Amino acid sequence: MTAKINRQWLLKQRPIGLTKESDFELAETDIPELQSGEFLVKNIYLSLDPTNRGWMNPVETYVPPVKIGGVMRGIGIGVVIKSKNPRFKEGIMVTGLLGWQDYFISDGSGWMNILPSFPGVPLPNFLNLFGMIGLTAYFGLLDIGKPKEDDTLVVSAAAGAVGSLVGQIGKIKGCRVIGIAGTNDKCDWLTQELGFDAAINYKTESVFNRLKELAPDGIDIYFANVGGKILDAALGNLNLHSRVVICGLISQYNATERIAGPYNFANILVKRATVSGFIVTDYFKRMDEAFKDLHLWYTSKKLIYREEIVKGLENAPKSLNKLFDGSNKGKLIVKISEEPEI
Amino acid sequence: MTAKINRQWLLKQRPIGLTKESDFELAETDIPELQSGEFLVKNIYLSLDPTNRGWMNPVETYVPPVKIGGVMRGIGIGVVIKSKNPRFKEGIMVTGLLGWQDYFISDGSGWMNILPSFPGVPLPNFLNLFGMIGLTAYFGLLDIGKPKEDDTLVVSAAAGAVGSLVGQIGKIKGCRVIGIAGTNDKCDWLTQELGFDAAINYKTESVFNRLKELAPDGIDIYFANVGGKILDAALGNLNLHSRVVICGLISQYNATERIAGPYNFANILVKRATVSGFIVTDYFKRMDEAFKDLHLWYTSKKLIYREEIVKGLENAPKSLNKLFDGSNKGKLIVKISEEPEI
Repeated sequence: MTAKINRQWLLKQRPIGLTKESDFELAETDIPELQSGEFLVKNIYLSLDPTNRGWMNPVETYVPPVKIGGVMRGIGIGVVIKSKNPRFKEGIMVTGLLGWQDYFISDGSGWMNILPSFPGVPLPNFLNLFGMIGLTAYFGLLDIGKPKEDDTLVVSAAAGAVGSLVGQIGKIKGCRVIGIAGTNDKCDWLTQELGFDAAINYKTESVFNRLKELAPDGIDIYFANVGGKILDAALGNLNLHSRVVICGLISQYNATERIAGPYNFANILVKRATVSGFIVTDYFKRMDEAFKDLHLWYTSKKLIYREEIVKGLENAPKSLNKLFDGSNKGKLIVKISEEPEI
Repeated sequence: MTAKINRQWLLKQRPIGLTKESDFELAETDIPELQSGEFLVKNIYLSLDPTNRGWMNPVETYVPPVKIGGVMRGIGIGVVIKSKNPRFKEGIMVTGLLGWQDYFISDGSGWMNILPSFPGVPLPNFLNLFGMIGLTAYFGLLDIGKPKEDDTLVVSAAAGAVGSLVGQIGKIKGCRVIGIAGTNDKCDWLTQELGFDAAINYKTESVFNRLKELAPDGIDIYFANVGGKILDAALGNLNLHSRVVICGLISQYNATERIAGPYNFANILVKRATVSGFIVTDYFKRMDEAFKDLHLWYTSKKLIYREEIVKGLENAPKSLNKLFDGSNKGKLIVKISEEPEI
């Protein structure tokens, strides 16, 4: 193999508020020789997710913070191009925490999986429906939300990668589904193409009042992708014995000050609701179960999804904020290199 | 029967902040003739509970607000002294929503139960261990908190009627138990007499810091009787997959302004915690199950409890605030009339 240069986005400083490109530094390093048990992955696609922002803060969350000077953490898809590991042979497609870089050396430990073999599924979809996004929607809704026929399900960031799947899976399970999104276009997409029963534009409507109108008997399941006022409006409209899935609190990830919790917190008591935090990594051991259902729904065309693919590793930092200003159109993915011919 | 006068505490106006005696009016009314199916209860003991304060606010919670001009709602014990109802015969002891008054006419509907037959149990204890207090502690901890051996259980208002039972049941179930209370005397009572492993005086210590010291691996079960800063401190010290039982938010019941939720709300997500509202009325149908265990623990002297009995219905309004300034010593009960000779 000829010597290759590995471009790496390093975290230069902890961002304050939204990330700036100057919070990162694009370094170029040589790729070291492989040790026994190691293999070299050429990264193809990089997933940009709201949770990435949390990883940059100087607080231990469900994972340690990215180190200053370290390669920015990210989930990706790549192909093994050189291997001293019998399980991960050359030519195998993998997914895991490949990082914001061209190449990744792994010994197979940590979060590193061989891609499931679903013929005909486009590669980026393994960062979407058949990746963390699909697993998050599937287990968050079914395991924590526990939908029953005729339940009223409300989803925030409903036009986002996770939210749009949650709503569609809710429809498959017989729920009445209301989505909350930030533009009329997104709301139209939800109701006209994805089969949501209703949608609320949180930028032009009062979420609290609209929920009261659309769900007069209260919300049975609230799938929270954002925190702040939208979460508060939902908590204020819960039904008895409702379930609230806290999957994300996007609106708070860039906060520069401590954020008060929801004013309607006491309604958890009054309505005997259950509010559960949910992180998909706890469910990795059950991924086959989810992928089986998701693949069935995918092949029977019950799941519609969108992707926005940005070309070039160099564009990763500046693209991340699309997730927070809502300008991305579907699952946001960076294309780092061409797909290999199969 | 000679004509009797029924003294009734009516709610004159909705209190702002702590209740004042002038929010109530002591009226005297005649007792009407019983209709078919009705029976007359002579009230003996009246339970004063933090939840009473919530019932006076102009908001529907888990029950409708007490009407202005209506008899103040309260749980009591009484004896049937006249009956046109075949199930509730004269001489039978009952418990239910008897109200802040000398007499109550019931047709047996709503919350009205015949006292369980536990020989040797003092009557006030049917408003404590063998009443709503015991059921709340039992189901709140066991059904929602789901204690496992060696779990770290933290209880707020730990020297209160519910909290002190929760901690002791936690010890029976093999938990490490930390109580939070408002005086050193109460803290000493918890650790020296009730067998709590530790206690925190929230008036003189930083609850957040002390929880971090006493529970370095985090709290597995938090039993919340109060809201505000104490709840926030607990949420900031949760362990992975912890359970938070929201049984009460005492510190917020007298609030005159909207209260922000806990700043550490996001920790519910990070720790994949489950926060569940709990109201004991949902468990009435399973009360026999609880009373069986509670009676066993009571007769084997595994449960210690205290009561403070105030004499005279006329003292009900002024006694209620003891629950909020923490000056009561155990379950607060008003004695309305003498116990009947058996």
